[in-house]
Amino acid sequence: MTNVGFIGLGIMGGPMAGHLAAAGHVVAGYDLSTEAVDKLRSVGGRVAGSVADTVAGADVVITMLPNHPQVEQVALGAGGVLEVAKPDTLLIDMSTIRPETSVELAKVGAERGVRVLDAPVSGGEAGAKQAALSIMVGGEGGDFAAAKPLFDSLGTTVAHVGPHGAGQVVKAANQLVVGGTYGLVGEAIVLLEASGVDAATGLDVLAGGLAGSRILELKRESMVARRFEPGFRIDLHHKDMGIALAAARQAEVSLPLTGLVAQLVAAARAMGNGSLDHSALLTVTEQLSGR
Amino acid sequence: MTNVGFIGLGIMGGPMAGHLAAAGHVVAGYDLSTEAVDKLRSVGGRVAGSVADTVAGADVVITMLPNHPQVEQVALGAGGVLEVAKPDTLLIDMSTIRPETSVELAKVGAERGVRVLDAPVSGGEAGAKQAALSIMVGGEGGDFAAAKPLFDSLGTTVAHVGPHGAGQVVKAANQLVVGGTYGLVGEAIVLLEASGVDAATGLDVLAGGLAGSRILELKRESMVARRFEPGFRIDLHHKDMGIALAAARQAEVSLPLTGLVAQLVAAARAMGNGSLDHSALLTVTEQLSGR
Repeated sequence: MTNVGFIGLGIMGGPMAGHLAAAGHVVAGYDLSTEAVDKLRSVGGRVAGSVADTVAGADVVITMLPNHPQVEQVALGAGGVLEVAKPDTLLIDMSTIRPETSVELAKVGAERGVRVLDAPVSGGEAGAKQAALSIMVGGEGGDFAAAKPLFDSLGTTVAHVGPHGAGQVVKAANQLVVGGTYGLVGEAIVLLEASGVDAATGLDVLAGGLAGSRILELKRESMVARRFEPGFRIDLHHKDMGIALAAARQAEVSLPLTGLVAQLVAAARAMGNGSLDHSALLTVTEQLSGR
Repeated sequence: MTNVGFIGLGIMGGPMAGHLAAAGHVVAGYDLSTEAVDKLRSVGGRVAGSVADTVAGADVVITMLPNHPQVEQVALGAGGVLEVAKPDTLLIDMSTIRPETSVELAKVGAERGVRVLDAPVSGGEAGAKQAALSIMVGGEGGDFAAAKPLFDSLGTTVAHVGPHGAGQVVKAANQLVVGGTYGLVGEAIVLLEASGVDAATGLDVLAGGLAGSRILELKRESMVARRFEPGFRIDLHHKDMGIALAAARQAEVSLPLTGLVAQLVAAARAMGNGSLDHSALLTVTEQLSGR
């Protein structure tokens, strides 16, 4: 059993901390929301009063935060995890952030004797609740091996994908493919409908051939019906496309489809659809086509 | 058993005509290539000397031609199928062409008492040889029902998707999704590699989640290894993206991702990669990124 400090008990972090407590680990949790900490208390976790209190006595500290400014503040800032953690603590940042911030965390961690992994997840709220996340881990192999039992309590696909930052790069690649596939399926739907073809019938054919995808399998019915309850919100995918473009910039590559997908996701948000499911990228194609 | 006239015995049409002959139909075939007609003769088909000779006595005429100019010449031109066919002949055009040409064929056919279906296929050379094509059919329900036994000798997925031209629209939608997915997977590979992440490991994670697709399943290994033997050539996908854009123009819709995918496929061709497999869209992202 491991002493775990868990910072960020939101939609994702809350259920994740709960699974670790249920698996018998000693979990201390910290969040600014009273509701979030009440939930942790109800599943047997200890509610910490500060970052320092969360880290005190922890062998592993997990952060699950909205974006890189929050991670920088909690981990790199004054009184942050890397300042107050005892030597040899393992910091696992499970937030989805720019790879370069993950590399920076690892660098500062090494200077202070704290081991660091980046371990972003996919699978969304449902995956967090059902402990069915995919977890993409960057960092040292030995640290990955040490953390593996914790990851196994949270997800069904757990992969060590490379050095520090590699987890974030794989997550970025995942999100560019997911966003782009929604865009392509949306264009197919608009083309079919505007041509007088029943979209559901047409997409059935696509789903059965080389055009087939998990998104066509799971989402074609709700997209054709224009049911866009999240799921995973456009606002979050907008953030993730920004990370994909930041990763591309850092790697010095040119990704034209990713750039266009990012702009289309931004358009969905600008149209006021940020709180809809990311499959609502379809609404942008409709708007562009006057439909 | 049906008397079938089959015009266009190329890479796709040759094996298709062979399957119909093997199923016991009386097949007369026509092609400009001596090699193509020899193959038909060897599987028990009759080699016709002209379009008129192919159509004479046929209840069903099937055309499988490179693009709309050939279809227009063979079907609409002087001495073409619609001029020489006896009333109530069923013309099934299985070529992949612009939907508007399919609609025109059906209109002229109706004036001359010839019934017409558009029935483009996907599945490529392998699908044609193994009688495992997907067949997307536009036209009247009664004509589809009459042709169904023939289609069942050629493919495993046979769908009546709507009125005249609908088969072509669904094929266009299929090709825009396939081309776009190759582009997205190519960008993911370039991002992973340029970031120092093992692409095969990263794509394994993508393939298991919401980013998963038939293309990731079947092609990620060959793409990472840069094995681009066709398969389905960039040249043909370039033609098909032109059809997708023509279909979008006719339907008066704006499909920005489709437009960009078409330009990237055009770039692959301009770079001299037209004879490679369409997964070689990856080479454009590499070129753009100086890799």
